[in-house]
Amino acid sequence: MELWYTEKQTENHGITSKITRTLHTEKSEFQDIAVIDTVEFGRMLTLDGLVMTTIRDEFVYHEMITHLALNTHANPKKVLVVGGGDGGAIREIIKHPAVEKATLVEIDGRVIEVSKQYLPEIAGALGDPKVEVLVDDGIKHLADKADTYDVICIDSTDPIGPAEGLFAADFYQSVYRSLKEDGIMVAQTESPFFNAGLITRVNKDISEIFPITRLYLAAIPTYPSGLWSFTMGSKKYDPLEVDETKIPEYPTKYYSPRIHKSVFALPKFVEDLIK
Amino acid sequence: MELWYTEKQTENHGITSKITRTLHTEKSEFQDIAVIDTVEFGRMLTLDGLVMTTIRDEFVYHEMITHLALNTHANPKKVLVVGGGDGGAIREIIKHPAVEKATLVEIDGRVIEVSKQYLPEIAGALGDPKVEVLVDDGIKHLADKADTYDVICIDSTDPIGPAEGLFAADFYQSVYRSLKEDGIMVAQTESPFFNAGLITRVNKDISEIFPITRLYLAAIPTYPSGLWSFTMGSKKYDPLEVDETKIPEYPTKYYSPRIHKSVFALPKFVEDLIK
Repeated sequence: MELWYTEKQTENHGITSKITRTLHTEKSEFQDIAVIDTVEFGRMLTLDGLVMTTIRDEFVYHEMITHLALNTHANPKKVLVVGGGDGGAIREIIKHPAVEKATLVEIDGRVIEVSKQYLPEIAGALGDPKVEVLVDDGIKHLADKADTYDVICIDSTDPIGPAEGLFAADFYQSVYRSLKEDGIMVAQTESPFFNAGLITRVNKDISEIFPITRLYLAAIPTYPSGLWSFTMGSKKYDPLEVDETKIPEYPTKYYSPRIHKSVFALPKFVEDLIK
Repeated sequence: MELWYTEKQTENHGITSKITRTLHTEKSEFQDIAVIDTVEFGRMLTLDGLVMTTIRDEFVYHEMITHLALNTHANPKKVLVVGGGDGGAIREIIKHPAVEKATLVEIDGRVIEVSKQYLPEIAGALGDPKVEVLVDDGIKHLADKADTYDVICIDSTDPIGPAEGLFAADFYQSVYRSLKEDGIMVAQTESPFFNAGLITRVNKDISEIFPITRLYLAAIPTYPSGLWSFTMGSKKYDPLEVDETKIPEYPTKYYSPRIHKSVFALPKFVEDLIK
């Protein structure tokens, strides 16, 4: 018997991947959580039937939601991840020697526990002494954290379900307040091919709050269309003014100092989304 | 009744897309040719069951297999496309005013005819007076064409079936001979995620023949992994030494002067393939 997992990434298009077995399924307070073992991408975490991460291609997303901001900020000591219960963003953040404390605020504690159990390569860093793990609503967490963080990464699920509020202008205002005077935020902002309207709207919202707004892209095979966007809002530092030759080499597989600026050079149809 | 087209892009992973109807199927002398109408990507041409191009995302591939080389060459008058029977590469090539003659050499005349009938947005340029269409084997065509072309684009199918010979070192030798003294070739060279070995081998072969070899990437949703590579071999001009500010704006949707150099900045795992 052949088992295939199929995700309808849009109403009319999706990916399909052969699996060897289902390792875990549960319905948490917030969502359906599953871990399946795929032949092509290894273990895969899905939430409400959508691929969150896989062993084989997780490096792209986790490196790209973190290192751009961290290598743009002059001294990122306190870093917050909102969402990101699998721990992959945290793993990348603590590669930076400047980081003194990395805080994870994940609304669904079960995502953290399931990731620790089934995706230890990704979640392993959650036990690091520099890491603080909070099971809480990111929106609530930021409400009383004025002037606290150097970098905030919004590592959310799609803008339906529990993460909807993480794509709202009000939330970006709250993020702005919680950042120090030279702070930087970065959010995953979906696919330019399938979520053009969202990218335009988020870019507008963030640029009305932050003096510097930058969109960049990365290639993620298991995400819709394979092309993914991230939007950065910065109070002071411009990622395009970083001296790439001074960025140290970290143990990464996608990010490197040599792509730090090039990922902001956008295909014309993506440029047009944020004009 | 819902109809879905599923392509196994590897043995264990693929895409699936809802279709409204099958517009055409035939078995030509060389391969199975089909045109289906998908809801997400519009009309889609498949050869031997693999997606060649779709109305919605064809712009990426066709712009990216042509404009990089054409804007690197100082004066591309005579341009050859090997394969590319859908006509999309030719459409982009004749956007360049320097081009006096664009020749298409496609082994399967039925691909040309089917594309003209069902994909006129892509194949329409094949009727342009600057365009010469030859139904012939690209390898045979080049055999007696020493010192003839300024740019040669190898717009092939995958390296199995009719296009196998277009990925061989012997063929690249022949391409070298057929280029003028400052000529440039570019070939589509599959996905860095799924065809790593091929990219490494082709890069080595081309760099043993051409003084300048450069790999670049583009995001194509309907191609395996969504990330696609192109390998350029150049006798004289280096795409990285082009003055981007002097590249004119063409009517394109993906390529722009602003990404001309950035697409050569490679994710670390891709850099590692060609070290």
